[in-house]
Amino acid sequence: MIKAGIIGGTGYTGVELLRLLSLHPQVELKVITSRTEASRLVADLFPSLRGRVELTFVEPDNRLLCACDVIFSATPNGVAMTHAPALLEAGVRFIDIAADFRIHDPAVWEQWYGLPHTCPELLAEAVYGLPEANRDAIRHARLVANPGCYPTAAQLGFLPLLEQDLIDPGCVIADAKSGVSGAGRGANVATLYAEAADNLKAYAVAGHRHSPEIRQGLEAACGHRVGLTFVPHLTPMIRGIHATLYAHLKNGDADLQEIFGARYANEPFVDVMPEGSHPETRSVRANNTCRLAVHRPGAGDVVVVLSVIDNLVKGAAGQAVQNMNIMFGLDEALGLDRPAVSP
Amino acid sequence: MIKAGIIGGTGYTGVELLRLLSLHPQVELKVITSRTEASRLVADLFPSLRGRVELTFVEPDNRLLCACDVIFSATPNGVAMTHAPALLEAGVRFIDIAADFRIHDPAVWEQWYGLPHTCPELLAEAVYGLPEANRDAIRHARLVANPGCYPTAAQLGFLPLLEQDLIDPGCVIADAKSGVSGAGRGANVATLYAEAADNLKAYAVAGHRHSPEIRQGLEAACGHRVGLTFVPHLTPMIRGIHATLYAHLKNGDADLQEIFGARYANEPFVDVMPEGSHPETRSVRANNTCRLAVHRPGAGDVVVVLSVIDNLVKGAAGQAVQNMNIMFGLDEALGLDRPAVSP
Amino acid sequence: MIKAGIIGGTGYTGVELLRLLSLHPQVELKVITSRTEASRLVADLFPSLRGRVELTFVEPDNRLLCACDVIFSATPNGVAMTHAPALLEAGVRFIDIAADFRIHDPAVWEQWYGLPHTCPELLAEAVYGLPEANRDAIRHARLVANPGCYPTAAQLGFLPLLEQDLIDPGCVIADAKSGVSGAGRGANVATLYAEAADNLKAYAVAGHRHSPEIRQGLEAACGHRVGLTFVPHLTPMIRGIHATLYAHLKNGDADLQEIFGARYANEPFVDVMPEGSHPETRSVRANNTCRLAVHRPGAGDVVVVLSVIDNLVKGAAGQAVQNMNIMFGLDEALGLDRPAVSP
Amino acid sequence: MIKAGIIGGTGYTGVELLRLLSLHPQVELKVITSRTEASRLVADLFPSLRGRVELTFVEPDNRLLCACDVIFSATPNGVAMTHAPALLEAGVRFIDIAADFRIHDPAVWEQWYGLPHTCPELLAEAVYGLPEANRDAIRHARLVANPGCYPTAAQLGFLPLLEQDLIDPGCVIADAKSGVSGAGRGANVATLYAEAADNLKAYAVAGHRHSPEIRQGLEAACGHRVGLTFVPHLTPMIRGIHATLYAHLKNGDADLQEIFGARYANEPFVDVMPEGSHPETRSVRANNTCRLAVHRPGAGDVVVVLSVIDNLVKGAAGQAVQNMNIMFGLDEALGLDRPAVSP
Repeated sequence: MIKAGIIGGTGYTGVELLRLLSLHPQVELKVITSRTEASRLVADLFPSLRGRVELTFVEPDNRLLCACDVIFSATPNGVAMTHAPALLEAGVRFIDIAADFRIHDPAVWEQWYGLPHTCPELLAEAVYGLPEANRDAIRHARLVANPGCYPTAAQLGFLPLLEQDLIDPGCVIADAKSGVSGAGRGANVATLYAEAADNLKAYAVAGHRHSPEIRQGLEAACGHRVGLTFVPHLTPMIRGIHATLYAHLKNGDADLQEIFGARYANEPFVDVMPEGSHPETRSVRANNTCRLAVHRPGAGDVVVVLSVIDNLVKGAAGQAVQNMNIMFGLDEALGLDRPAVSP
Repeated sequence: MIKAGIIGGTGYTGVELLRLLSLHPQVELKVITSRTEASRLVADLFPSLRGRVELTFVEPDNRLLCACDVIFSATPNGVAMTHAPALLEAGVRFIDIAADFRIHDPAVWEQWYGLPHTCPELLAEAVYGLPEANRDAIRHARLVANPGCYPTAAQLGFLPLLEQDLIDPGCVIADAKSGVSGAGRGANVATLYAEAADNLKAYAVAGHRHSPEIRQGLEAACGHRVGLTFVPHLTPMIRGIHATLYAHLKNGDADLQEIFGARYANEPFVDVMPEGSHPETRSVRANNTCRLAVHRPGAGDVVVVLSVIDNLVKGAAGQAVQNMNIMFGLDEALGLDRPAVSP
Repeated sequence: MIKAGIIGGTGYTGVELLRLLSLHPQVELKVITSRTEASRLVADLFPSLRGRVELTFVEPDNRLLCACDVIFSATPNGVAMTHAPALLEAGVRFIDIAADFRIHDPAVWEQWYGLPHTCPELLAEAVYGLPEANRDAIRHARLVANPGCYPTAAQLGFLPLLEQDLIDPGCVIADAKSGVSGAGRGANVATLYAEAADNLKAYAVAGHRHSPEIRQGLEAACGHRVGLTFVPHLTPMIRGIHATLYAHLKNGDADLQEIFGARYANEPFVDVMPEGSHPETRSVRANNTCRLAVHRPGAGDVVVVLSVIDNLVKGAAGQAVQNMNIMFGLDEALGLDRPAVSP
Repeated sequence: MIKAGIIGGTGYTGVELLRLLSLHPQVELKVITSRTEASRLVADLFPSLRGRVELTFVEPDNRLLCACDVIFSATPNGVAMTHAPALLEAGVRFIDIAADFRIHDPAVWEQWYGLPHTCPELLAEAVYGLPEANRDAIRHARLVANPGCYPTAAQLGFLPLLEQDLIDPGCVIADAKSGVSGAGRGANVATLYAEAADNLKAYAVAGHRHSPEIRQGLEAACGHRVGLTFVPHLTPMIRGIHATLYAHLKNGDADLQEIFGARYANEPFVDVMPEGSHPETRSVRANNTCRLAVHRPGAGDVVVVLSVIDNLVKGAAGQAVQNMNIMFGLDEALGLDRPAVSP
């Protein structure tokens, strides 16, 4: 059994991670920390876990954390980097579900996240935890930077096109629509029910933190500079991301359906749907799959990829468990192999 | 392995049953019928099941059905009674998730359902499948009438009070709020998104089919005639029932919290929450639990019970699987033992 | 033109009041105060008012407020009582949309609101602003206590029954379902979209502040002590209250439909629907009407009244404008006479 | 007073048109037809109109329709063209809110709508009713083709860029998100609450009927062939369209904010928001405004325009009333000049 701990488990990623780990046959959940909820029963905060999770939140305590085999950090940005060095030193493997280790260049990170990075030396070691791109490196990683939700949906949709040099990397567009849980469980007027329901808006059009992360991943895939326009939207759903991706084909003869199918044929958590499909976010609700469809409207030179994930699962906690499975040599789908909840 | 079949699997109960059975370690799903979708892949109709359910819908075919150990009927009312006699005859156990076998008195059934009952002789044999009331009978039943969604929520809340003769049975009130999936997957203007969203209404105040079913169950529990007022409401949720139950206490000294706790202490799927709790429907989303809280506002003589279930799980498909587990001597929670999906 | 001011206009009641007053042909909006948003354009905070409301929020300033004919107070509880004495002294009429002046007995008020009342001497003068009960007193009032949202829906449904001595006042039940805007625009985890969507729960079953307010109104109507059980529920709607009211008939011969029709025949904002109706909350969205239906299931002795309002209109800002119209001798429906927005 | 009639008033456009016309000070609503609801009171079908609209649905009857000054056709596609010739002949002005007269080329129309056009000779006369593009022609038109909802949002966002030759017309992208009311009030499984809630999907990526309409309008604005990629999405809102528009700037020096501001300076129903804004659909709920914001992320050569409308108002019934006002020489905003309903 893998002894697992969670730092900062009071947000939506935390409760989803608790749900998933409680279902994992090879994980024993040993500790969960929270400064604000210390000494409260987890199941009191999250009644959906009554009878399933017996733990009590504790103050962050390195002794307890170091007794684990793996730590998931589900805190706000900037906290994981204060924990990671000591835990890695103690031989604990570390999966950061926040953004502290996702950007290789500390200057870029500091520009977008507005904080000095306290352990930039770990950035070179950190493995970006998108299994479909970096499975081998994840296997041996001590420190995994779990991808962001938008970056997961966008990269999985663009990778086959960029790896095969099928599109112009100078201008790609990701128009992404997210459920409100992506904004976190913090008290915030903008994400109140009466603000976000029956409403839709774009945000951060001038620049969103996930832009450099997506671009970094796409550039790694194609070896070129990528010109990315990324526009996120807040939509009245609890969970789900729908990324609609646009690019210009360089080669009109490519069989896109075949290329996508081949690229992901052996991936347990990417489902390339049949030609002409329109994946729905609910088809992956509470599920770790990314469903993709590739279209070429009017047989023209614009390719449109539709990519859906559950932002809390493949976009956060589920992918973190998938990474853990890879890191510990388990079947990659262990504990994650359940159909979506729909309707 | 139990060989299972489903008659009429294209509604919300059907897809939920497919999800649950696909997760059951002792069930092999052999056949699923649908007149309208025959020869279509199940996963084409329900993309959430892609990669999980390989079956194709077939026309109803007694030969195939009779090769199963158990048949779940998830059809509209009035269909199960056309299938049950032959299947029972062939030695197949039969769980009707619709209402054909729920009411003992065929005259009452015909009055509320507007059809002649074609096998009234089976009504005496049919066991009402509320495990918390009828577990022993279910164990040996050939034919189980799976309870309705409202009746499940209402009966579980009232049972401890009526069994202990704590309330006046002459006047009990069940004010119930249901998500829209309870109305089924049929095309219907009243349940369109733009009709049901951001809206709330009562319906069938003059009389709802679940009234006689609830009353029958409550009367069996207390041995008296029960005067029930039942008002269902349509609310903008996909899943979930919240029943708010009101009754007059006859005995002001009873420790209601203790009585509820004792009544359900050994029930795997009833959770009596701590004093003062307000259960939320999302705490049982996609989960087979009924969560209850009992209140006595102002220490007066009105008792208020709050009862939440997922109408598609404990109110339909999940309870059907629970009944199957009991009928086949399995652990009652087998294949159902997962936390709710929340948020 | 009536010169109007608003104290505390940054909540949902405030923005709705702004919408309604901007449409009122006899009102000139002169001042709106907010400590937190002072010097910000109203239309910057509420883009729905761009081009309609040119005002800027200012710090509370008695000089500006005293130049108005009427002040609406849309602040949290406990603030209006700090403003009312000076404004009344200056001859300004005052409509408090919060609860400071709703309860006649200061001891009761202090018990439920947890604050000392700073001007109890005004409680005797304050008129409870339910026009359907107190129209004449409102006409001459300097100080109007605008009713709460639940109390409006509940009282309008019970009044005809209690005034005619048709029900047992010892036990009446109000099971009320509210949209989330009723909880206000404050940042709060419990009313985040991802908490409140696709979810339903009761709250404050042990006792809610609107209980004494409802009871006071019902007791005034019938002259007896009223035994009230009131259970509010939070439901996934932006706006709307649906109150389902239960009582025991003392007189089975009464023609309830006729009695309700006669009671409200001349009321511009109460609509008694035809026998057998089920009013929907969306039928009053953005509208000042209360729609009612009265049922007697199975011709028994339980009467069920269904009562719907828009909590922000008839339950708050709209009723405040209705009260202003009465106070200033205008047509009661002036500026409020528009159909609901549906769907 | 203008005598107005409505053909086919049982859909969402119909009920919204009824709401708007009932508020119009210069309109007398004389007749509303429906084959399915003939002889039923309008207010029975739409309780939101109780007390506001006294009409009864009647069978289509040319005698009654010909007594009107203007007829709005709110039927499914293909019906208006069977009525228009006789009504125009009789001197009645005709506003088709469906698509029968939007496409100039009958061959293109027939290809996309799958019907033979029965009065192609009227296509040349029909004026496309986008006031911001065609106001003068609308003034004198007998027959107005009211624009589609997506085309309204998309054209208003692209027009300033194309008219000024600022972007490459060869590749423009419109990623549009619509509320579910846009799919109409017909019974349809895909738009049931339990299908469309908490879900998001693209549809018709291969080609949508609004594509040729948008392209025709954009080509008229710039005089060139326009290469348009249009992807509509179904989102869980009742009302609202958010179009996110992408194009490549040819001229990096243009002051886009200034150009948009100048283009729409005198438009009563287009609101160019300040630089950096993100318009929300709810800011135009139940309102005839289109709010726009123009962005140039990273000062690059991609321009992003955000355009929001209420699909039932500026995208249908409201724009039809605006067109009527223009046709009859009234103040263009008459009867439409009310703020949005938000929250």
